[in-house]
Amino acid sequence: MLRNDQIDKWDRDHFLHPSTHLAQHARGESPNRIVRTASGVFIEDRDGNRLLDAFAGLYCVNIGYGRQEVAEAIAEQARELAYYHAYAGHGTEASVTLAQMVLERAPKGMSKVYFGLGGSDANETNIKLVWYYNNILGRPEKKKIISRWRGYHGSGLVTGSLTGLELFHKKFDLPLDGILHTTSPYFYRRADPSQDEAAFVAQCVADLEELIDREGADTIAAFIGEPLMGTGGIVPPPKGYWPAIQAVLDRHDILLIADEVVTGFGRLGTMFGSDHYGIRPDIITIAKGLTSAYAPLSGSIVGEKVWKGLEKGTDENGVLGHGWTYSAHPIGAAAGVANLQLLDKLNLVENAGTVGAYLNQSMREALGDHPNVGEIRGDGMLCAVELVADSDTRRFFDASDKIGIQVSAAMLADHKVIARAMPQGDIIGFAPPFCLTRAEADSVVAATAAAVRKVLG
Amino acid sequence: MLRNDQIDKWDRDHFLHPSTHLAQHARGESPNRIVRTASGVFIEDRDGNRLLDAFAGLYCVNIGYGRQEVAEAIAEQARELAYYHAYAGHGTEASVTLAQMVLERAPKGMSKVYFGLGGSDANETNIKLVWYYNNILGRPEKKKIISRWRGYHGSGLVTGSLTGLELFHKKFDLPLDGILHTTSPYFYRRADPSQDEAAFVAQCVADLEELIDREGADTIAAFIGEPLMGTGGIVPPPKGYWPAIQAVLDRHDILLIADEVVTGFGRLGTMFGSDHYGIRPDIITIAKGLTSAYAPLSGSIVGEKVWKGLEKGTDENGVLGHGWTYSAHPIGAAAGVANLQLLDKLNLVENAGTVGAYLNQSMREALGDHPNVGEIRGDGMLCAVELVADSDTRRFFDASDKIGIQVSAAMLADHKVIARAMPQGDIIGFAPPFCLTRAEADSVVAATAAAVRKVLG
Repeated sequence: MLRNDQIDKWDRDHFLHPSTHLAQHARGESPNRIVRTASGVFIEDRDGNRLLDAFAGLYCVNIGYGRQEVAEAIAEQARELAYYHAYAGHGTEASVTLAQMVLERAPKGMSKVYFGLGGSDANETNIKLVWYYNNILGRPEKKKIISRWRGYHGSGLVTGSLTGLELFHKKFDLPLDGILHTTSPYFYRRADPSQDEAAFVAQCVADLEELIDREGADTIAAFIGEPLMGTGGIVPPPKGYWPAIQAVLDRHDILLIADEVVTGFGRLGTMFGSDHYGIRPDIITIAKGLTSAYAPLSGSIVGEKVWKGLEKGTDENGVLGHGWTYSAHPIGAAAGVANLQLLDKLNLVENAGTVGAYLNQSMREALGDHPNVGEIRGDGMLCAVELVADSDTRRFFDASDKIGIQVSAAMLADHKVIARAMPQGDIIGFAPPFCLTRAEADSVVAATAAAVRKVLG
Repeated sequence: MLRNDQIDKWDRDHFLHPSTHLAQHARGESPNRIVRTASGVFIEDRDGNRLLDAFAGLYCVNIGYGRQEVAEAIAEQARELAYYHAYAGHGTEASVTLAQMVLERAPKGMSKVYFGLGGSDANETNIKLVWYYNNILGRPEKKKIISRWRGYHGSGLVTGSLTGLELFHKKFDLPLDGILHTTSPYFYRRADPSQDEAAFVAQCVADLEELIDREGADTIAAFIGEPLMGTGGIVPPPKGYWPAIQAVLDRHDILLIADEVVTGFGRLGTMFGSDHYGIRPDIITIAKGLTSAYAPLSGSIVGEKVWKGLEKGTDENGVLGHGWTYSAHPIGAAAGVANLQLLDKLNLVENAGTVGAYLNQSMREALGDHPNVGEIRGDGMLCAVELVADSDTRRFFDASDKIGIQVSAAMLADHKVIARAMPQGDIIGFAPPFCLTRAEADSVVAATAAAVRKVLG
């Protein structure tokens, strides 16, 4: 093992980290952390710190850390056949089996799955397929994509444009043309606080209708949304939102892409968020939960309607000009098969639902009455505590006070619990592995309550 | 193991393959192949076919198949820590070590490496960094990217736009605005056959200058090119091309991105193509050879000049809003470390140079005089045989005759050798693993000669 000072120097000198203050990191002004091992809901770094990871990495290690069944599946695949491509009808037993397993679990009406690497590139594939589809259908003008403010769909150029968060746009010239954003279905932050949930849903629908009318339905190809908004603040949809939105899209022949990178494979206590909220998507984006992050793999599940267009397209034009070298990578596919088997065997989806509900309920009991807690919300194994300057008047903190970051830092320093200060607003996010126990949920709640009281009194 | 008829049905019913005729595949009209195991330069499918893979997957399995040292490194990482993210200064011993190893091998003047998943997303990162850089430098208009016809830089929306091949544009509405293409440095296919190599390089330079003048240098951020064009036809640059192009870019303060996805880590018999051809890049794209495809991993190596801009940018704006969940994935990083160690230990870069030269020379001896062979070209462990209707007059075949596809199909059927019919033109491409022996090279050449004669006489 390398000495800590050696690894620290290499890290600062040469490693360009994602989502990091690069200059501070390089100058050694911000902490780094070299993670060494992990098991269950705990990670351990090289300095011997053992931390309860209540965010499952980046809400992805759904089965928990250290699962030797998945490690062994990866090892076996690596020994036998680490790589072959999937172009021109090639595959491996693992990739074909996983395709079958995904479709067995997917909502009704789905037909095929394309495997990519991460959620961003899966959404990139989705937009390409949607454009291709409308070209094949002879409507070349129907190409714009509607996303939502505070949605998260990746951080590439087009996928970062779909994302509706300032951090991912600023200084990158995003969003690009042709990507539109409509109202965020964020009831707590509604513009008109006098609206009840039904009125707010009607407002979301009216805003969407207005956008479609302004742009022209014949210019709009698809609408993309997470069943439950993740990085935008862990925000479940208001009651009745999805059926109302779906009706608008159906009326205007606009495809619906459900981005289930966070919600797919059990995080809401059901296999897919689309089933959970009664969404009938045309395409579903999957990633994190597909392999529980043990190896990179994402996917685009394509429904019957779009598939028919792709079939017609290749009959008319030959080979589809799309693919990554690492599409359906055998290591990712092997990890995916083992992960989905383990999810079933250990009843982890059910556990996500029951212990997730317990976590949410306990958090409400511990902090619901605190004057700086505006809302505690969640669904399944997702929970958020939104901090405000005054909960009675819904007055938000000044962003420069970094209250969310202070609270999550206190949780880490004082209680060795990892939660995530979400990027826009003072929102503490929780997305633990599905194997979280009630006792571990209690630790998370206690750490949160203590940190909130330390920072805010 | 699954029965072959079961796996065939699952494959046809549910697996959306990259770069495939989707309709024919689903209807069972085109062959599929389920690869089971592989070793050295040979792969083996479930039907017991053993094939010599003279394209190393998709020119990526550089160390050869079945390397147990890399499999064991992957297995060990999977058992200990399959995943943790790299956001906010986090890392693993593997990812930090690999960053150091990459920089030790990179051309002079490089500073940091960001790790992604595949070549496409690495180029996506590059464009984001270039735009950010010019925003930080206060020149928001300097954003267009110049690529080259026949270049290959990915198949996303922006990266597919950088690519200059029809297959990747058609029916996808690409290229997007702001991506420009200049003359392909493809001497054999030069527009004016009377030009010698020096005159053709002067033409490439004049065309680039003209494009820059027309658009305005203050609107152009970067030029991207593969040191040796890969998917566009395996085309080494004409003599003097890169120094002449570099001089134009320097004069106009245009950054140079060297896409070394194919050439990086030894394929030309030198560690990087940039060193091989005397290129001084500002950013280098790496992928395939970084892990020899044993696990997905790509990278953007950032030079000092761009790094200074990123540093300034985060000092002014805080955290860089860019990252993939699977950036610097531990499994990929572990594979990368073991792969680069093995490359050194087995002297594989040197072997790529010497056996590659032997392969090219033998191919010339076997087929150089054939009336349908227009050119045999290559460098290092890369070789191409370009087939034409008449080599004296340089008359090309009609694309609909699919001559290249017929020849590669004959090589596979009759000789169990995999070569690739490149997508644009009748060009048979070779990019074997670096461990290719002279005897194996002889087999490849013999198969090629026999197949060319079978199809063309």
